[in-house]
This record gives sequence, structure tokens and C-alpha cells, in this order.
Amino acid sequence: MAKVTKLSGFPEWLPEGRIAELAVLDAARRVFELHGFSSLETRAVEPVEQMLRKGEIDKEVYLLRRMQAVEGEADPGIGLHFDLTVPFARYVVENAGQLEFPYRRYQIQKVWRGERPQEGRFREFTQADIDVVDRDTLAFHHDIEMAVVMAALLAELPIPRAVIQVSNRKLAEGFFVGVGADDAPAVLRTIDKLDKIGAERVAALLVAEAGLTLEAAQMCLRLAEIRTPDTSFVERVRALGVSNDLLDEGLDELAQVVSGANAVVDGSVVADLRIARGLDYYTGTIYETQLLGYESFGSVASGGRYDSLASDGRQTFPGVGISLGVSRLVAALIGRDLVTVSRSVPSAVLVAVIDEDGRRDSEAVAQALRARGIPCEVAPKADKFGKQIRHADRRGIPYVWFPDGDGDSVKDIRSGDQQPADPATWSPPPADLHPTVSPKIPQEEAL
Amino acid sequence: MAKVTKLSGFPEWLPEGRIAELAVLDAARRVFELHGFSSLETRAVEPVEQMLRKGEIDKEVYLLRRMQAVEGEADPGIGLHFDLTVPFARYVVENAGQLEFPYRRYQIQKVWRGERPQEGRFREFTQADIDVVDRDTLAFHHDIEMAVVMAALLAELPIPRAVIQVSNRKLAEGFFVGVGADDAPAVLRTIDKLDKIGAERVAALLVAEAGLTLEAAQMCLRLAEIRTPDTSFVERVRALGVSNDLLDEGLDELAQVVSGANAVVDGSVVADLRIARGLDYYTGTIYETQLLGYESFGSVASGGRYDSLASDGRQTFPGVGISLGVSRLVAALIGRDLVTVSRSVPSAVLVAVIDEDGRRDSEAVAQALRARGIPCEVAPKADKFGKQIRHADRRGIPYVWFPDGDGDSVKDIRSGDQQPADPATWSPPPADLHPTVSPKIPQEEAL
Repeated sequence: MAKVTKLSGFPEWLPEGRIAELAVLDAARRVFELHGFSSLETRAVEPVEQMLRKGEIDKEVYLLRRMQAVEGEADPGIGLHFDLTVPFARYVVENAGQLEFPYRRYQIQKVWRGERPQEGRFREFTQADIDVVDRDTLAFHHDIEMAVVMAALLAELPIPRAVIQVSNRKLAEGFFVGVGADDAPAVLRTIDKLDKIGAERVAALLVAEAGLTLEAAQMCLRLAEIRTPDTSFVERVRALGVSNDLLDEGLDELAQVVSGANAVVDGSVVADLRIARGLDYYTGTIYETQLLGYESFGSVASGGRYDSLASDGRQTFPGVGISLGVSRLVAALIGRDLVTVSRSVPSAVLVAVIDEDGRRDSEAVAQALRARGIPCEVAPKADKFGKQIRHADRRGIPYVWFPDGDGDSVKDIRSGDQQPADPATWSPPPADLHPTVSPKIPQEEAL
Repeated sequence: MAKVTKLSGFPEWLPEGRIAELAVLDAARRVFELHGFSSLETRAVEPVEQMLRKGEIDKEVYLLRRMQAVEGEADPGIGLHFDLTVPFARYVVENAGQLEFPYRRYQIQKVWRGERPQEGRFREFTQADIDVVDRDTLAFHHDIEMAVVMAALLAELPIPRAVIQVSNRKLAEGFFVGVGADDAPAVLRTIDKLDKIGAERVAALLVAEAGLTLEAAQMCLRLAEIRTPDTSFVERVRALGVSNDLLDEGLDELAQVVSGANAVVDGSVVADLRIARGLDYYTGTIYETQLLGYESFGSVASGGRYDSLASDGRQTFPGVGISLGVSRLVAALIGRDLVTVSRSVPSAVLVAVIDEDGRRDSEAVAQALRARGIPCEVAPKADKFGKQIRHADRRGIPYVWFPDGDGDSVKDIRSGDQQPADPATWSPPPADLHPTVSPKIPQEEAL
């Protein structure tokens, strides 16, 4: 292992970074389970033909082949999944006979995309998804629920304030058709480039490629400017004077999501008609999420309603879901120095070793502490106590335990305070039991 | 998604199976953290040249390529990792300047091997590893510690009794050299086939391919028969009359592990000189683990000491580790029907919905329960109560909550008992709060 190769786009964290990531993952699981979502893990691979049926991401799939594939062995035709929604839809169809519907699941896994890496965009990253699917029809209140659950999770994380932006495909498509577009999806894909190329070039593309009149293109751009924290977007869209049944349906749905979600988690959801989502399979509500002050990082939680992704030809399983971009979020927390991690190891206590013959006594102390749920480790060497204390200090372990036939003692190495202690009864304060991850106020914002 | 393809060797569980798997994963994390191991997650891919330097598993690696690789684009030369030890060694070398040594880490991730699938052998599976590495030298007591921590974990799992079998590469190699073998690793690889092809054919191979005399081959087979629950193996090896310095060193090390580990976790570790481990990188202690009564399932926890796996040419980081085969274990629990899972969802309570206008009241009850850590879900439809109760029953949710302006009530649907309740104060008994996974006594064993 003479040479070590960093692989661009495949992030790995140091121990403290991983603790920050675990804090996010643990919060996600806790919130999802509190809301009755079951855990699911699907295999990492899918048949390629399955993955390519939906979405425009065929360029980004990693294909697999066995290194020592036998001559004439058929290409297995499998690749790494690029999201968790397509595998989930496949799983639902495959196991429909053994699942209870509506089926509520969360899924926390890595996904892979062969994209060019850049800040916040990786080739391997972890997502935390929730989805609800039902047979034939899915009640609309789940579209509200997705925003509520994600807002509840975001509120628990040590992150800058997050705002979930919601829009609706029916609203957009109805509007585009209403202004004369023949190919509404093409308009949508062009509008999706607003952040990248700006309004002027989008307008030009809408005319040149999507076949709109200049006036219609301007209307679409005006629609994309509408962003309201409440249902007042409805009036603003109406004021543009476009009428279409699908538009009406979309307006009504979006109004329900914005008012319904803010009734539970006030101020966490806005209507934002600019958002479009790249994937083809969405059919109604769509979600993105910005961190206030860190908008350049991109959406940290996205998703939407998909009415026909999961289908075996006879039955259809409509669904709605939202996905937290864990790696992107953690990269922001670490890269922008937004959190403080209290220590780099789980141990609350280092049990000192007097001499190697006494190692078993130190182990017995550690076993007694562990039996009461206190994470600890035994010093690896019977060094001088000063050196053992430095061993703890370098890892941020707050307590060092000194076994002594005449009575043990434990030292808080932050304060220097040392007290007699019994391994059968002593506990650290609850705040010291596990590593903590807390938001750091950036210097410029701390007034 | 008209056709759904089952992929052989890529296991996926139904919701109850996943709950059994989570119970194993949660226990692993809890035990590892109690012993002061830090979490690490490495990327799923490694440079192929890195992976092939050690071990005989080059046939089994899955290589990756981007589906739409541009003409002339270099093959990235990356593949999916086949274990967690090689990636860990690479990570240690790559980040040595920022890690504290000895570095104790656990790692719970999927690995991939392009093997032919069979019972207990998958192409994608989850492992839960612990390892300790240090700079230059690693204290031997960690070889004992690995067995102790794994025994502590196995004792917490809802599984048949497990026994960790320990042997030592120095012992085996010293013995083989002592009986006249020129190529000790070749003898080891042949002995490793004992379970598959039997003693007679192994003896023949030892003579034909490893160049041993028939007498030496018989001696090697007699060594492999030795299995003792204590250090009495030392005398039995001595009785074979072979002498060699490396053998002595191995005997001493193995005696330390067996006596040291059983002093803490009595009866969970045996010396077993048959075990060999396929991987080339082990240099001393090696571990395997059998489930009593389910030996055919293969080892569920394996590992060993590797003194030179992690090295950048200037520095070496010796290590020792052991790995729980989570997927193999869970497949056994589910496939052999060894556990009972109390319910298929995290929800302890289903909050009934009187009518759709009252959904917000039901949501408010749910929010109050969740705020006190009680997982619950709201009924998806305002069906008749009988239907809502059946909805809970099918998922194993034990309680149904009935909101009522005149005073709520909660029903234990197992007993039928219904009581007035306040969402601000009511809690289920602790045993009902989360799904439980408990060992099932097979009919034939329940006397």
C-alpha cells in the first residue's frame, strides 16, 4: 500500500466529521420512526434497463462487471442506483403481495452518480428518504405530511435555518399549456436552467427550442418569479391571466400543501414557482430546500409526488416522498465550519492502567461502567499518568479513571477536579455521556 | 417497470426482517461504542490495484465504469470493496497525520463479491467490523480484546449460542516448517479446504502439491484436529513432537488469547487449530465463529492480526480486527425462523381519524405523543373504526387512539381494554414502545 489515491467525488470524513454525520443520521431515523416510517434497505444495484426508464440521468450511472468475467459470460446489465426512489418503486412492485398499504418507509443509503464532482456534488453520497405509496390512489394529505416531517427533522439538526420550497408540476404544466406551449416538459427543463444561465438566455431558449412566442416565454419567466410564504401566490398567478384546468388543480394542491404544512410547522414552507426538479417521474407536488445564507450549496432536501413510477402494468402504486441530502449537508457543516463536535471518540471515560499486571483491574472497572451504559476505553499502555491523561485529552475524553486498591477516583480533566468514585455507581453528567454536535455561530454573525 | 427482476445473491428483507437486521446493527453499534470504538465509513470503491495486493480474491471484485464514458476516457480502475479491512488500512495510511493512535474504529457497511451465491454467501452483504491499529507496534492485549468485544456482542443478539474459534498463523506456519514444509502458505491454503474436501484428499494434496512427506502431511492433519476450550492445546501440540521458534511464539500468543478472553467472557472462546482463514494478510491470531447447531452456515464473525497490511513504505500500522457477518446472520435468523419480531412498523400507536375534517385533531394527538418519544402514525383514511383497528392489527401496532372532544381514549387491541387517556401524559409500557426481536425456541428443541 505504498501509494494512496484520493478519489475526487468520494468523500470520507475524519472521526469528528463522522460524528457530525451520525448526528444527522440518528436524528433522521428518530424523526422518521416517530412518524411511523419503517426502515428499508434495498440492494445497491439495479438492472440498468430499469433505471433508465425514468429521468434523464443515464449518463451518470456506474455499470458493474466482474473483473474475472468468464469468456462469453453475459454482461449482468446491472449498475449502482443513482437515487433511492427508483429502487423503492421496484421493491414495492416486487413485494406488493407481502406489504401493507399505504406503505410508509424510510431509507438511508448511499447512491452513486458518475457526475463531475464540485462543491456539494459528489459521485458517492448518502441520502435519507421517506416515501408513502398506496395501491391505485394515494390520499393527498401525504403531500402535506412529507413537508411536515422533513421540516420537523430539519428543525432538529444543528444547521442554519432551512426553508422548504414547494411547487407543483400540474400548476407549471397547466400554465405552460395555457400560454401555448406544445411541449410542456421541454419548457420545464429549460426553466430548470434559470439558476445556471439566467433569465435572458432561458427566454431565448424557450423561443428557439421550446417553440414559445417571446410573450409566452416572458409569462413563464414571470411565473417563475413568484415566491410567497403563504397562499397569496394563487392571486399572483391568477393576475397573469392564464387559464387552464390543470393549472387550477395545481394551484389548489399547492395551496393545500403551503397552508397545511405551515399550520403545523409555521414558516418552514414557502410556495416557490421557480423550482422544477430534473427528474421526469414527478407528477404533482415537488419539494426543494434551501439553507438560508447558504443557498449556493443547492437543495438539501428534495422530492415530489410520482403517480406512475411504480407499476407492474396491472397495478399502479402512486407515491410521494422527500429526500435529505445527508452528504451535502454534512459537507457544508464541516467545510463551512458550522458545528462544534465535543470529542472524536464515543468514550466518556479513559480508565488508566497502573502497570501491565493491573490491566485486568482496569478492564473490570471498564466492564462495570459499560454495564451501566457508560462508553469507555482502557489506556493502551501503562504509561506515566500524565501521558495517559494527555491520551484522553487529545481525543476529547472528559474523564480519566484511576483504579486504586484503597479506593478509585475519577478526574474531570477539563477542570482538574478529582473525586473518589465507585465504578458500580458513578455516572458522568448526561451531557458528557455521548459526543455532542452543536451549531457554531459564525464570527461575523455573533454580535 | 413492467418486469421486476430478482437478482440472485443480492438479499433484501421484508419490513419485519429489516427490523431483525436493525436489532443486530443497533446492538453492534452499542457494544462497539461502549468499548470506545469510533465510527468510520469509507467510500464503497477502491483503486483495483490497491485491492489486489493482498488476498486471493481478485476473481470476485466488481469493477465500475461510467455508462456514458466518453470516447478515449481512461478506465477509472476502481471497483467495489470486497471487505472493510483493506479500505480501512488505506484510510489509515491516507489520514495517519490526522488520526490519534492507537486508532480504534468500527465500520458497518456493505461489501461486494462476484461469487456464486449459495446459502449464507451473498454477492452484496453487510459487515460490522472493529479494528485497532497503532504506529510501528501494536500491543498484544488487543488480540484478546477483539475476542472479548465480539463475545459481548454475540451474547446480546437473539441468536443460538456462538463460539469464537481462535488459532494463530505463527503457530501453524512454525509447525509446518517444523515438519519440513518449504511453502508454509501453500500448506495453509490446502488445510483450509478440509471442510470442503475432507482429510484424505487434503493429505493427498499436501503430498502432491505442497511437497510434504506423507508422514508430515499426517502430522499437519493431526494438528488441525486439536480443539480445546482452554490452554490444554499447548500440551497436545507439544505431544506431536515438532519444535520451531515461530511455533513457540504462536502457542504462547494463542494461550494468552484463550485464557485472557475466557477470563472475561467464560466459555465463549476455544482454541481450534483447524481454522485457517483464506486471506493472505493475517500474520498472527485468527478468529472464526460458529453458531452451535448451525455450523453449516459458516463463520458469522471472523478476523485476525495483520502486522503489515497498512504501510506507506516509511511507516507501518499493525492492526487486529474482527468482523461480524451481519447479512449471513440475519439470513439465518429469518431463513431458519429463529426469531419473533413483535411488529412490522415502528409505530406504537395508530391515531384514528373520525372524519377528514378532524384529521388535524388526530395529527395534534400524534404530535403530542411524538414530542414525548412515542412513535405513532395517523390513520390514512377516516374509515369505520373497525377498519382502522384492522389497519393497526395487520401491522402489529398494539394501541389505537380515539380522539374525542369529550375526552380521548386508547385501546390495547390485543386485550380489547380501552381506557380514557390524555396525549400529554399517556405512555405505553416500555416493552411496547419499540418493536422487539426475540429468539424463538424451535419446536423440536422445546421439550
